[in-house]
Amino acid sequence: MFGPLVVGSIGLDTIESRGQVRTEVLGGSAAYFAAAASFLGPVSVVAVVGDDFPDSHRDYLHKLGANLDGVAGATGRTFRWHGRYSDDLNKRTTLDTQLNVFAGFSPEIPPAYRQARLVFLGNIDPHLQLRVLDQIENAAMVGMDTMNFWITGSRPALLQVLKRIDFLLLNDEEARMLSGEHNLVRAAHGIHKMGAKGVIIKRGDAGALLFHGDHTFAAPAMPLSDVVDPTGAGDSFAGGFMGFLGRIFMGGAIDGMAVRRAMICGSTMASFCCEDFSLDRFRTLTSDEIEERFLRFRHLTHFDELRL
Amino acid sequence: MFGPLVVGSIGLDTIESRGQVRTEVLGGSAAYFAAAASFLGPVSVVAVVGDDFPDSHRDYLHKLGANLDGVAGATGRTFRWHGRYSDDLNKRTTLDTQLNVFAGFSPEIPPAYRQARLVFLGNIDPHLQLRVLDQIENAAMVGMDTMNFWITGSRPALLQVLKRIDFLLLNDEEARMLSGEHNLVRAAHGIHKMGAKGVIIKRGDAGALLFHGDHTFAAPAMPLSDVVDPTGAGDSFAGGFMGFLGRIFMGGAIDGMAVRRAMICGSTMASFCCEDFSLDRFRTLTSDEIEERFLRFRHLTHFDELRL
Repeated sequence: MFGPLVVGSIGLDTIESRGQVRTEVLGGSAAYFAAAASFLGPVSVVAVVGDDFPDSHRDYLHKLGANLDGVAGATGRTFRWHGRYSDDLNKRTTLDTQLNVFAGFSPEIPPAYRQARLVFLGNIDPHLQLRVLDQIENAAMVGMDTMNFWITGSRPALLQVLKRIDFLLLNDEEARMLSGEHNLVRAAHGIHKMGAKGVIIKRGDAGALLFHGDHTFAAPAMPLSDVVDPTGAGDSFAGGFMGFLGRIFMGGAIDGMAVRRAMICGSTMASFCCEDFSLDRFRTLTSDEIEERFLRFRHLTHFDELRL
Repeated sequence: MFGPLVVGSIGLDTIESRGQVRTEVLGGSAAYFAAAASFLGPVSVVAVVGDDFPDSHRDYLHKLGANLDGVAGATGRTFRWHGRYSDDLNKRTTLDTQLNVFAGFSPEIPPAYRQARLVFLGNIDPHLQLRVLDQIENAAMVGMDTMNFWITGSRPALLQVLKRIDFLLLNDEEARMLSGEHNLVRAAHGIHKMGAKGVIIKRGDAGALLFHGDHTFAAPAMPLSDVVDPTGAGDSFAGGFMGFLGRIFMGGAIDGMAVRRAMICGSTMASFCCEDFSLDRFRTLTSDEIEERFLRFRHLTHFDELRL
């Protein structure tokens, strides 16, 4: 078994945050996902990089434990993104996006990956997400991400994907846009009707809400005194979420309590992600620190029985 | 014993929300506080109303169990507020405020109230809050609310009040303005240094954060599919919070777990408040419904032990 399989982007990010700049650092949804998931167990990656992609980045992800057999090397430049955060980190402005080799990305799932039981479709063209699903033979649980660009621009394909997945992860504005409902409870119910059994609405420092069948679960965000760079927090959440499910998956059904614990694991990895630029916090992160933050989440939300 | 004592406003609100208008309905911070707290136990009110204040409103609060001996009747018109919510309820515009008899409000605490052990200073001029504290003889726990208007306009007096209270309840923007810190953890720490031992940051549908000494607690907001009118939700939170503490207060110290449970009780009463205009949801609310919502909060936040 090789834990969750993620299909998404790997790129070089230039990030301006809190008066500092990091130039062409490791980024991309699949990179963040894989790094976060690697702390929970094996993870496999399907992505594409150009011939300028530094070996050091590949070595780093490999050293974390990610299986990179599905990361294709293409002739040309690697995907690049350049973004800037406002001083209060509330607003992100994209200054430049260069798709480069990612423009021709057509995910080929290596034969060894096609038996993956847990699959995460990163934020890519829904047509490509469908293409991935067509190659997967035995998935027990499929999660996916999407964004406004696909919700407005590729809605029919996106609706097709939604019929074939278990969990949709998206932020509140995306949930509103997809469902046409401002109220998040109604938005989640609308998305349920589109096919997703579980809807996870990520709300940044307001935490994440899980609407799973009739159950609702609220995972807080860990209040942090020093947020350095929120880039990749959502992908790290997804990596922690799917990585945790991969860790406990024994071949049967995934129960509701496991999904709640996976939400907290996702929130944990997202909180670490924000503490440094790029994937740098994961370079020094230890199992003990993760355990300690689990305990902090427990403490953050715990209250005794309450009766009138 | 008479539970918490609240000093604040009682007024007549005109509210435009979700395409409906309610004209000159019962409102004001002390009214919402008292209604919410009344479900937990006794509550006493100090406020002022004009000679046009309908007996029916007074009777309603009295019937809920609020002691209104401290509600002075003044010659003139009652305080009025007129507000309008945006379609998505995210934005509130004040169309009109008439202080009327509230302009001359100088809270006189009836002798019987001066022994109150739990006191809540509603969102009024900090000079008046100080005046209240000067009349209180034996408080075990004092909570207070404030707003941007006083933070910028009456800062020195506000800082004096902060030195004399236990819990400050305010929203995130107010916490940022008061502390000069955008990050909420730093904002709360800054406010701790001003004297408030507990800082409760209310974030609307993102829930409330408690920073209490070294402890942090996150209370989610109950996801509601039908928010009708958010007016008074913060005051209802305060009423549920203080009412719960009043209910369990036995004369000793109030421990951290009790404060957490009080936060959930506050969130419960705030969630009911939003379900109808004005204080109308409290007209039909039952103890069974409150108990059931406590259980829903438990379910909303519960997860098993989590280990790597």
